[in-house]
Amino acid sequence: MKYQSVLKIHASSLLYIVLGAGLLSCTPPNTPPPPKNIAPAADVVSGVDVTLTKAEFKKAQHIYFDRCSGCHGALRKGATGPNITPEKTLKKTLAKLEKILYEGTEGGMPGWGKDGFMTEDETKLMAKFVRLEPPQPPEWGMKEMKKSWKVHVPVADRPVSPPADRNWENYFGIVERDIGQITIVDGDTKEVLSRIPSGFATHILRTSASGRYMFAIGRDGKASMMDMWAEPPNLVAEVRTGIDARSIDTSKFKDFEDKYAVVGNYWPPHYVIMKGDTLEPLKVMGTRGYTYDTNEYHPEPRVASIVASHHAPEWVLNLKETGVVLLVDYSRMEDGTITETSINAERFLHDGGWDSTKRYFMVAANARDTISVIDTVERKLVKNIITGTKPHPGRGANWIDPEFGRVWATVHLGEGLVSIISTDPKSEHAWSVVREWELDGNSLFIKTHPKSTNVYCDNTINKNKSNVLTVFDINKPDAAPKEIVFKKKVVHMEFNKAGDEVWISLWDKAGEVVVLDDKTLKEKARITGLDMPTGKFNVYNTTRDIY
Amino acid sequence: MKYQSVLKIHASSLLYIVLGAGLLSCTPPNTPPPPKNIAPAADVVSGVDVTLTKAEFKKAQHIYFDRCSGCHGALRKGATGPNITPEKTLKKTLAKLEKILYEGTEGGMPGWGKDGFMTEDETKLMAKFVRLEPPQPPEWGMKEMKKSWKVHVPVADRPVSPPADRNWENYFGIVERDIGQITIVDGDTKEVLSRIPSGFATHILRTSASGRYMFAIGRDGKASMMDMWAEPPNLVAEVRTGIDARSIDTSKFKDFEDKYAVVGNYWPPHYVIMKGDTLEPLKVMGTRGYTYDTNEYHPEPRVASIVASHHAPEWVLNLKETGVVLLVDYSRMEDGTITETSINAERFLHDGGWDSTKRYFMVAANARDTISVIDTVERKLVKNIITGTKPHPGRGANWIDPEFGRVWATVHLGEGLVSIISTDPKSEHAWSVVREWELDGNSLFIKTHPKSTNVYCDNTINKNKSNVLTVFDINKPDAAPKEIVFKKKVVHMEFNKAGDEVWISLWDKAGEVVVLDDKTLKEKARITGLDMPTGKFNVYNTTRDIY
Repeated sequence: MKYQSVLKIHASSLLYIVLGAGLLSCTPPNTPPPPKNIAPAADVVSGVDVTLTKAEFKKAQHIYFDRCSGCHGALRKGATGPNITPEKTLKKTLAKLEKILYEGTEGGMPGWGKDGFMTEDETKLMAKFVRLEPPQPPEWGMKEMKKSWKVHVPVADRPVSPPADRNWENYFGIVERDIGQITIVDGDTKEVLSRIPSGFATHILRTSASGRYMFAIGRDGKASMMDMWAEPPNLVAEVRTGIDARSIDTSKFKDFEDKYAVVGNYWPPHYVIMKGDTLEPLKVMGTRGYTYDTNEYHPEPRVASIVASHHAPEWVLNLKETGVVLLVDYSRMEDGTITETSINAERFLHDGGWDSTKRYFMVAANARDTISVIDTVERKLVKNIITGTKPHPGRGANWIDPEFGRVWATVHLGEGLVSIISTDPKSEHAWSVVREWELDGNSLFIKTHPKSTNVYCDNTINKNKSNVLTVFDINKPDAAPKEIVFKKKVVHMEFNKAGDEVWISLWDKAGEVVVLDDKTLKEKARITGLDMPTGKFNVYNTTRDIY
Repeated sequence: MKYQSVLKIHASSLLYIVLGAGLLSCTPPNTPPPPKNIAPAADVVSGVDVTLTKAEFKKAQHIYFDRCSGCHGALRKGATGPNITPEKTLKKTLAKLEKILYEGTEGGMPGWGKDGFMTEDETKLMAKFVRLEPPQPPEWGMKEMKKSWKVHVPVADRPVSPPADRNWENYFGIVERDIGQITIVDGDTKEVLSRIPSGFATHILRTSASGRYMFAIGRDGKASMMDMWAEPPNLVAEVRTGIDARSIDTSKFKDFEDKYAVVGNYWPPHYVIMKGDTLEPLKVMGTRGYTYDTNEYHPEPRVASIVASHHAPEWVLNLKETGVVLLVDYSRMEDGTITETSINAERFLHDGGWDSTKRYFMVAANARDTISVIDTVERKLVKNIITGTKPHPGRGANWIDPEFGRVWATVHLGEGLVSIISTDPKSEHAWSVVREWELDGNSLFIKTHPKSTNVYCDNTINKNKSNVLTVFDINKPDAAPKEIVFKKKVVHMEFNKAGDEVWISLWDKAGEVVVLDDKTLKEKARITGLDMPTGKFNVYNTTRDIY
């Protein structure tokens, strides 16, 4: 019952964990081991006042990757968490560092010891570790990628047409993050079709332009490609693109459908373009560069999220530490040419989604409580909008507000707040917050669908109400929301293709996905036997960016 | 008479020195000290088998910057010279390294001890130094640049019109590299107008689109801006953009004339965009990234050269180690947006020039004996052309060949060869070598002018004939060239505005610039009292890329 300790963590700790390690990365101690390719240490590593053996140093590196690097960065320069290089840590006593590691801080640092994620010895080890110079993680270039690349089903051996008797565009991929598995479910029949191994701690699923292929990206940088036309859907290719990754997408513009895939890495700080049918790595482009505002060099600007533009043969890459949105033109990949447009946005970029026209990309800059609006037609920043504490839209949600017309909304990690922004460029309210809805708990995700009048919010990061799904009525924006109470923690919502069902994860070792009728809010079905289910991605809605 | 030792160096050593440290960087021991901002060492620096004191380590760092980094790179990963990180150097004995440093190698390494540039103790120190991990040179971001930025003459205090009684477009800037000085000479009267202090070891001069401003870039990263309208011309602004630099240019496209300047650095590997009238640094963009062919991360892709496109608001940046030509669109700098197009070319990119239409940029990739042709209209690589051993065009030379029409030519560092390439895209010979002329000595520069029928080549890197200027006749391409013999080493040629005089540097501590009549090849004038004059840049020809 070690996992139960998670439920006792106070909200700010969870916030930290979620932001740092990616979507719902609060992994219990019995998860798979962290990836191995972290820089080897010397026989003994000594600093100003501490010495670790090689074995201790290696153990600390693994713990650091698993618990610390998401927030503090592989090189410890800081992002969501502060800079913890020796320059900073040596100003504190060893005892103070041990205390912080064990008990946490008001600023959001989890109490790793107190909350049961590290033993007391481990917190002491980590206090020493952060007084030593950070080891440089290894590079990971084409040679390493090619070695890891596997095509499990050659293109010639794959089906030439979709399943005749299944509504495959209504398939769902469900992430079972902690066991490294993607479960494919038929959204019509609710049958589990296949369970496909993925990388460590899958962060997101995306689809090819046709929807036929589904792609997973593991936190260990392993990309997996699954064929929805196969019966049952299967793993057709995989490649490890780096040491630490969060994002994947595909080329979706006319004439480039299903042609390329792209992974954005945390370490090394780069993105990798691959063949869309085999994941063969083709090109690596670095992101190391300068902060948009202060023009300081940053050694690890991480690719926080990627979406495919609907208006150009481009991907929108969001570089966390530098606050730069990179428009990457892939139309000349045949001769190896890449064009990057660097747009100054805000720090630290995280995730985001399209407005309903799919012209404007709304991306969270969580260190500045901002949503940055990027116009992908004019290819510029429209506005930085202050919303609330640490916006976390996931993809956000679009609907028509009875008073303000077209709006898009985000929830927040740092407060119980839905910020609703006008996305009609012709409105006098364009690109400003037109409504705010209160939530009982800080939230991870918000979701609606063009055919729905409900807006669903989870309250995952709330110690009392994490098992509650909050449902607002688009047409009664001033009315109190409904609350649906479950027996387990609720996280992440996704609609089916028809837009008449909403699927909700109950986040537990004995986890389930509950299917609600969107009109009646009654339970229609329940998929059981899922290990810590988190994100769910409907093929049709993911392919078309419907949310 | 220490400098005389230079004359005894064999050709391959000089080749190495020239390539490594930039144009004619064979500095005698009494030159100004190297820049100071190199990473400080710890009290004692120890490696596998050697230990240096802090003082020894610092001294070695300075020598390394001055003599070694140009070829081997600040991080010692290798470029023109091989990789000399401890991974490699520890495979040789200390004695072997000392021998190489003292005596040089057949591969092109100078005999630093034998040739009198390092004492025996210094070669021993350097042998130890390269067995230690390379110190990371410091970063240099906006904060450091802003501190170094000085406007000596505010815009409001500058003349509003050019000198009434001088043909200022026929001014020449003459680089006196070793004393850090630019001498401005009136090309009509041959008067020395002013002597302006520049950075350490100026590598090149460029002008603004109007020609009014002349810019120098020092090897120490200091950019200097001189006003040709002032009487006499004066230093109006300066800024240090990095630790080690080679290239500078300005925005020359319609509507952006005189608006921006740009410096390309060796360290840090980045480029810096500045205001064109004050050198105020505005934006820094990194170049760290992946090799174009093997997709390996390179920690210091150096900006080898920059030219301003005539067909778009773009600069053409040539990244040495990655073999990438970067087209940098500056048209949206007002909102901080930069668009970079990465074109795969060849390694290691060095310098180059335009064809006569100014559409095609011809750039040397010296490690692969290649000229890469970049089409700046279609924004792609046209062809990689094999020419000879280590092409070094400077800007190259354009003329009309009686048989092949439009051609462009380069000389070579590694052999006495002029390679003449057809640049007429409609010719059946387009982008191939149509003629080869033999030279007695390996050469640094070639020059002609649209009004001239002569093609001038120096033979600087030749121990016997470095004092000879070779003159070919465009209209008698099979005839033996004329030779003009001087009493001192000849380097670098430049035409006057009218195109009827060619100016030649005699490279010596008691140096001179000799002005020849282009028709008669007779001496017309001589500018004396110049300390080691190297490059000379005519305002009109530099502004319009006439060569």
